Amino acid sequence: MLNPSKLAMVPFVSVHDMMRIVNDAGVAETIAAIADRIEADFLRWQDFDKVARIPSHSEEGVIELMPTSDGEFYGFKYVNGHPANMARGFQTVTAFGVLARVDTGYPVMLSEMTVLTALRTAAMSVVAARHLAPKDARVMAMIGNGAQCEFQALGFHHCLGIEEVRLYDIDPGATAKAARNLGTTGLRVVSCATAEEAITGAQIITTCTADKKQATILTDNMVGAGVHLNAIGGDCPGKTELHRDILLRSDIFVEYPPQTRVEGEIQQLDPDHPVTELWRVIDGQLPGRTGPDQITLFDSVGFATEDFSALRHIHGEMKRTGFYVDLDMLADPDDPRDLFGMVHRASGPMA
Amino acid sequence: MLNPSKLAMVPFVSVHDMMRIVNDAGVAETIAAIADRIEADFLRWQDFDKVARIPSHSEEGVIELMPTSDGEFYGFKYVNGHPANMARGFQTVTAFGVLARVDTGYPVMLSEMTVLTALRTAAMSVVAARHLAPKDARVMAMIGNGAQCEFQALGFHHCLGIEEVRLYDIDPGATAKAARNLGTTGLRVVSCATAEEAITGAQIITTCTADKKQATILTDNMVGAGVHLNAIGGDCPGKTELHRDILLRSDIFVEYPPQTRVEGEIQQLDPDHPVTELWRVIDGQLPGRTGPDQITLFDSVGFATEDFSALRHIHGEMKRTGFYVDLDMLADPDDPRDLFGMVHRASGPMA
Repeated sequence: MLNPSKLAMVPFVSVHDMMRIVNDAGVAETIAAIADRIEADFLRWQDFDKVARIPSHSEEGVIELMPTSDGEFYGFKYVNGHPANMARGFQTVTAFGVLARVDTGYPVMLSEMTVLTALRTAAMSVVAARHLAPKDARVMAMIGNGAQCEFQALGFHHCLGIEEVRLYDIDPGATAKAARNLGTTGLRVVSCATAEEAITGAQIITTCTADKKQATILTDNMVGAGVHLNAIGGDCPGKTELHRDILLRSDIFVEYPPQTRVEGEIQQLDPDHPVTELWRVIDGQLPGRTGPDQITLFDSVGFATEDFSALRHIHGEMKRTGFYVDLDMLADPDDPRDLFGMVHRASGPMA
Repeated sequence: MLNPSKLAMVPFVSVHDMMRIVNDAGVAETIAAIADRIEADFLRWQDFDKVARIPSHSEEGVIELMPTSDGEFYGFKYVNGHPANMARGFQTVTAFGVLARVDTGYPVMLSEMTVLTALRTAAMSVVAARHLAPKDARVMAMIGNGAQCEFQALGFHHCLGIEEVRLYDIDPGATAKAARNLGTTGLRVVSCATAEEAITGAQIITTCTADKKQATILTDNMVGAGVHLNAIGGDCPGKTELHRDILLRSDIFVEYPPQTRVEGEIQQLDPDHPVTELWRVIDGQLPGRTGPDQITLFDSVGFATEDFSALRHIHGEMKRTGFYVDLDMLADPDDPRDLFGMVHRASGPMA
C-alpha cells in the first residue's frame, strides 16, 4: 500500500553516499553493471520518451536538462559544462539527477551525478567499444587526462581486456595525476609527451578534452586503419576534437542523431551525412565493425537514457546498501487539498 | 573570492524550512513580494531565455521541467500534475526547483516548490488582475476549492482589496476546508451550492479545478459583461475549464504564447486567434482593461520566469532567515581533475 507520509520524503544520495555505494561494489564493477544496464535499455530503445537535451548557453558554458521516461520511471539530469571552471578550482562538469515514478509523479531518489556521470560515460564508451572496437584491442590511447580519464581506462581494462593505456594531456600535471591513480589497477600505464606518441600502437583512441571550441586533437594522418575512435569530448555546439577529414574516413556511430547532429563531431559534416544509431547495432539490425581496416568512430555526446540507466542502477544500490538520507522535499498535508492549512498551522506556537 | 569547498555544498530549503520562511514574513506578504518580483521580471522580459516547458505525458498525468535564465542566474522547476493523486492521499501537484549561477553552472539553492508554486501562482494571478480586473472589484468567485484556493483568495484580498470570496467546488468538503482556513483572514467568505451562485455579484471569477479533461466549469451565459476571468486550472493539453464561446467574447491575455497555445484555454481556438502577451501590458506597450463592459481573460498556465522570480525571492529570504541546510551535492576533489582519486581515496580505512 502507498504511504504518503513516507513518500513525501525523497531519498538523497549525497556525494559521500555515492562514493560509499561505488566503493562498496568497486569502481570497475559499478562501471560494468551500468554498462550492462545501458545495453539492456538500448535494446528497448522504443520504450523511451526521447528528446534532445535542453541547453541554456552562456559565454562561460552551458547548463542542460536531460529528461527521459520509460513509462514506469521518469529521470532527468541537471548538468553543467564550464571549461574555465577548472582554473578556478571548480569542476568543469557537475551534475545531479532525479528518478521519479510516472504513475504519481513523485520523485523516488535525488542523487549527486558528478561522480555518476563519469561512471556512466565510461560505461557507455565500453558498450560502444564492445560492438565497434577490434576484438583483439589491448592498447588504448587516452588524449585528455582530466576528471573522466581514469574511469574510461579502468572501464576498458575491466570490461574489454585493455592492458595498456597511453596517456597524453597538454598539461603534464594531469597526466601525472592519471598515471598515479591508475598505478595500482593492473593496467600498464605509459605517460606520453605528445598525442602522436600516445596513439602509437593503440587499437582504441579515446579523446576527452574540455575546451569549448573547435580543437583539433587528432589530425587525419594520425589515425591509421582499423582503429576505434571513442570521441567523448566533443559534446557541445562549437566544441569538437577531431579533424573533419577523419570523420570522412570513418563509419560513424551515434546515440541519438537529433542531439548528436547539433553537439557531436558530426556538427562539422552535412546534416544528412550517414550515421548509424548505436541501438540498431546492439539490436543486431545493422552491422558494427565489419572488417580489420575499418575506422569506427563513436561520436559520443551522452544521452538521457544513459543517465536513466545509471540512476536505476544506483536506486537499486541505494536500497541495497542503505547509503542515503531522507529529505523533507514534498509537501504532505494530511488532506492533500489542505496545503494552506498545513502552512498556516506551521506558524502556530506548537509548530 | 570563490571558495570551492563551500560552493560544493548546496543550500536546501525543505518543506519545513519553506513554511518557516513564509510564516516569518507572512503568507499574504510573501505573495505580495513575489508578485512585485514577477512584475519586475516581466518588465525585463527580453533578458530571459524562454522556452515552453518540457512535458512528459502519461495516462496518469504529466511531469514537466521548466527552465529559464536571465544571464546571471538559471532556474528550473520540476513539477508533476496527477489529478488522480488526491484520491490516493497524494498532492495533485508537487514541485521542487533549483537556482544556479550561470557563470559557474553551480547550483546555489535547491528548494521545495509545492508550497512555493501555490504562492507564485497566486502572485501571478494578482499581477494579471492588477492590470486587467475592474479597479473597483471587491467580490471574487472561486470555482474549485483545492490546494490553490486559499492562496488565491488571500493574495487578492491583501494585494487588490477583494473583500468577499464566494466558494464553490463539486466536493462540499473542499469548500468547507477553504471556508475554515479563510475564516480568520478578514475576508467575507460565502460558501455556495452551485457555480451560478458563486459568480453572483463577482467582478473577478477564478477557476482552478484539477480534472485532466475538457470540463466546462463555466458556460457562456454565466459570464456577464465587465468581468475579469482568472483561469488557472486549464494548463495541460486536453485540459480546459471554460466554454469556447466565453473565449470568443473575451480579450485574452497570456504569459508566453508558444506554451499557452498548447496548454491553455486557447487550445480550443484557432492557432492564430489574437491574444495579448501580458508583459506588453505591464510594459505599457498595449492596453489591458479598456472599458467597463470588457471581459478580460487571463489564460494562465504558469511560466518558467514566474518560478524564477519566486526562487530568487526565496533565495534572498533563505539567506535572511538562515532557514536551510547544506547538502553535500557537488563533488569537490582538491584537484578538480582528480575525481577518480577522490572516489578511490574514499574507499580507504581513513574514509
